[in-house]
Amino acid sequence: MGIGQLGGSIALGGRAAGLFDWVTGFGRRDDSLQRVRALGLCDATTTSATAAVADADTVVLAVPLRAIPGIVDSIANALRPGALIIDVGSVKGTAPRDIEARLPPTVMFVSCHPLAGSEHFGPDAARADLFAGRRCLICPTPRISAAALERARALWQALGAEVLTMPADLHDRVMAAVSHLPHVAAYALAGALGQLAPEVESAARDLPTTSLRDTSRVAASSSAMWQDIFLENRAALLPLIDALATRLDEIKEAIATGNDARLGALLDAGRASRARIVPA
Amino acid sequence: MGIGQLGGSIALGGRAAGLFDWVTGFGRRDDSLQRVRALGLCDATTTSATAAVADADTVVLAVPLRAIPGIVDSIANALRPGALIIDVGSVKGTAPRDIEARLPPTVMFVSCHPLAGSEHFGPDAARADLFAGRRCLICPTPRISAAALERARALWQALGAEVLTMPADLHDRVMAAVSHLPHVAAYALAGALGQLAPEVESAARDLPTTSLRDTSRVAASSSAMWQDIFLENRAALLPLIDALATRLDEIKEAIATGNDARLGALLDAGRASRARIVPA
Repeated sequence: MGIGQLGGSIALGGRAAGLFDWVTGFGRRDDSLQRVRALGLCDATTTSATAAVADADTVVLAVPLRAIPGIVDSIANALRPGALIIDVGSVKGTAPRDIEARLPPTVMFVSCHPLAGSEHFGPDAARADLFAGRRCLICPTPRISAAALERARALWQALGAEVLTMPADLHDRVMAAVSHLPHVAAYALAGALGQLAPEVESAARDLPTTSLRDTSRVAASSSAMWQDIFLENRAALLPLIDALATRLDEIKEAIATGNDARLGALLDAGRASRARIVPA
Repeated sequence: MGIGQLGGSIALGGRAAGLFDWVTGFGRRDDSLQRVRALGLCDATTTSATAAVADADTVVLAVPLRAIPGIVDSIANALRPGALIIDVGSVKGTAPRDIEARLPPTVMFVSCHPLAGSEHFGPDAARADLFAGRRCLICPTPRISAAALERARALWQALGAEVLTMPADLHDRVMAAVSHLPHVAAYALAGALGQLAPEVESAARDLPTTSLRDTSRVAASSSAMWQDIFLENRAALLPLIDALATRLDEIKEAIATGNDARLGALLDAGRASRARIVPA
């Protein structure tokens, strides 16, 4: 359900790994499904959610975060008993419990988050090896069974990912730090360069730097997707945005007042906290 | 003069290209020069600035920005007539005029800035091909001669770089946008992650994301070097830090108030300005 970078990569990778005999791709927009067919990501496509899941052993919810409840309600009665349902949402919060509550007890539900997206999106960004060597987080829900967890784990392992389980609350706080805040920073940085004087913007275009390219890379991501993520995870994200704004202001003050020692200490502190969190 | 990533790479690349018969490396600290010798970056090393330049056809000033005037004063009377002197400073401002004024009229001075640094620094980060395919900016000074410009251009071209000339003032405004502001953003982001709760920091370490890695990459740079650059270029940099702080605050407000449309517009604007400035 939803054949973008993640859904399409699960389709491609799952077929390559022999997990799936047949993949039906569901989408709302026919032009997008046309592209899915042209790329050969699925065996068939449909704009009918119930038709998509009618015969399915495995259902992957890879639609935007806020579209999930509506999709779940529309498929709940069409699901095959014993089917495995997974979502791949980037924010958990109360969503996994909510999805589980909307599903019949005859199916297995496992809430997953593979850490494998990039700034590219849409069906063209799908790759069979997207999950190879990456981590996939599973946030257990109240009704999760050992059998369901094992099926989901086997699926991700077949796609090349290593599975870790984590409570939804901790998941959201960690993702706010290692993913959502970096995206906010990149969008803000890119936005700050939107009003350069014409001669500066023109010269900037001719002088590509790796620092700007990398620091702003994820600002090329889907705005619609990140808008959802920021809003859904606002509770964990807002305090970190405040911390970023405070740090930025401290650096600015140290530069403006020519406070050498203070500026050095602030840069050293950033360097040190990055070294603790980001593997070399 | 100064055998870090840039100075060491010019030494290595210049010898590989047949530009230099002999390279003497100057540094203040003997432990650093010991490393320079162990890496084979120079034919000889010395802690005497005058001894280093006495016989030199070409002198490369690759010491930290604020150390340049002192070094220039100490070598001015020892320079060979006709020698080419270049600096590789990341901020120009009035520094090139100042260096030129301190040098005897018998030498040729050209102020250069190769866009080739990375977050790695020190002699171990030197590479013969560091400048291959990169740009090098030359900021002409009042006394620059066509012959001096040609010698400097030939040097950078032999190292694989493409040379562009640009007024020092425009250089500093462009670099504030494409390099200095991204470094401020990366240091602030990394610093903001310095006070995570222990369980969040611990989980973050186990969940490497490409977004945090790339967005914060340049916060691994030399704090001492960037402290100098931020302070030297404060006039061009501070208005951009203000723009970044404003944009960050706008994004925060849109998230806090759940203003979907406004948040989407802010992210779209960041995406669009990045697309204008950063080549795909």
